[in-house]
Amino acid sequence: MQFTSEQRLDDGVLEREFTLREIPGILWTPASASKPVPLILVSPPPLGLRKAYPRLLARARHAVADGYAAATIELPWSGDRPRSAAAEQALTDLHRALASGAVDNEIIDRLILPLVDKAVPEWRATLDALLALPEIDGPVGYSGGVISIGTRLAVVEPRISAAVLFAGSFVPRAILEEARQVTIPLHVLLQWDDEGNDRQLALDLFDAFGSKEKTLHANMGGHTGVPQYAGEEANRFFARHLK
Amino acid sequence: MQFTSEQRLDDGVLEREFTLREIPGILWTPASASKPVPLILVSPPPLGLRKAYPRLLARARHAVADGYAAATIELPWSGDRPRSAAAEQALTDLHRALASGAVDNEIIDRLILPLVDKAVPEWRATLDALLALPEIDGPVGYSGGVISIGTRLAVVEPRISAAVLFAGSFVPRAILEEARQVTIPLHVLLQWDDEGNDRQLALDLFDAFGSKEKTLHANMGGHTGVPQYAGEEANRFFARHLK
Repeated sequence: MQFTSEQRLDDGVLEREFTLREIPGILWTPASASKPVPLILVSPPPLGLRKAYPRLLARARHAVADGYAAATIELPWSGDRPRSAAAEQALTDLHRALASGAVDNEIIDRLILPLVDKAVPEWRATLDALLALPEIDGPVGYSGGVISIGTRLAVVEPRISAAVLFAGSFVPRAILEEARQVTIPLHVLLQWDDEGNDRQLALDLFDAFGSKEKTLHANMGGHTGVPQYAGEEANRFFARHLK
Repeated sequence: MQFTSEQRLDDGVLEREFTLREIPGILWTPASASKPVPLILVSPPPLGLRKAYPRLLARARHAVADGYAAATIELPWSGDRPRSAAAEQALTDLHRALASGAVDNEIIDRLILPLVDKAVPEWRATLDALLALPEIDGPVGYSGGVISIGTRLAVVEPRISAAVLFAGSFVPRAILEEARQVTIPLHVLLQWDDEGNDRQLALDLFDAFGSKEKTLHANMGGHTGVPQYAGEEANRFFARHLK
């Protein structure tokens, strides 16, 4: 992990860009902290870090104000990272299928499963590097992004203690099955009136999670209209589990 | 409205029992308040006030600690109130239908609609009496109980500004239709793993509510196992809308 830039934001947040292998990322920490802090992995939507930066920063500022470090990395094939011809083809096929009103599982699998297979080891390597820093220790929370990535990470990465997941992307059937193996506390946000989202699938996924403590918060406001109070409730979920 | 007893509880809560016409009720207010306080109507489950008292008192103590008055009344045909032969028959028929695994809408209608028809005017008369007391003014919240009663009240009673509803009882199709006319902010609690509850119907009801601001919080823990943090989120919902 190499830090490539560093700036102190006006509210006591230290923002450092880094690269890990070829993956760009951003780490936000309290500019002054007397002891190591817990960590929240803030997974981006599949827009590229640059486009997602304003809302990632807003979440990171909250996290740092609440006493955590926050970190994000670019998703595979997003932002300035090399493209995948197969992923682009799957996305083209998805858009064509959406336009015709018939999305089949094969396209979802082709789009999402390779992304999960590549992103999850990258997040784990990032976690290795972050936890080696003297200013960070556990526990670790995960907040994101592409819900299939969060689901797989919750299954395979024992250092993640609790996760806030956003229902709102396509989910392969295989991930629905993996969800049964999740046992950590989960806080799932669903935008009830998100027209681009398969609400029933989101409810099926919530039902499938094996966690004894799982909470679903459904709100109005469309895909990007998560109410402010819903974000605050998610922060309180982390406060209950990461402190 | 006649007060029939009065006691000061140890945490600064004044508890007064009353009767309004033949209906018994309980009012909880701050023992000392410098100005009139907003009100939360705490509607009981259909157990009778005596059996429900411990959990109603817990909710009332929270409400008073947060600066509200809280009040409840006995449901029709519950507790020491006169029984209804038709309601008892409907309940018997429901239990028989549940045992055989086939509950039809006709039984639900026969059980719930007369209860709603009788309870809602009683709550409105109680509200008249409570708002005439110098120590209480608006805004008014509703928290309860039998979700069909809360739904009808939210439609017909303009003095109710916000409601916390518990999904967990049978809902007639007619009430699902009425739900579309509800416009006040709603906070709906659903126990996801409540085996005696029709989860799909609860989700359909949540979907039907016409309110622009509505939130569904689904949690684990069975019918009566609402987590403490879920109660606290409901209190914050009232704080956003009644202050």
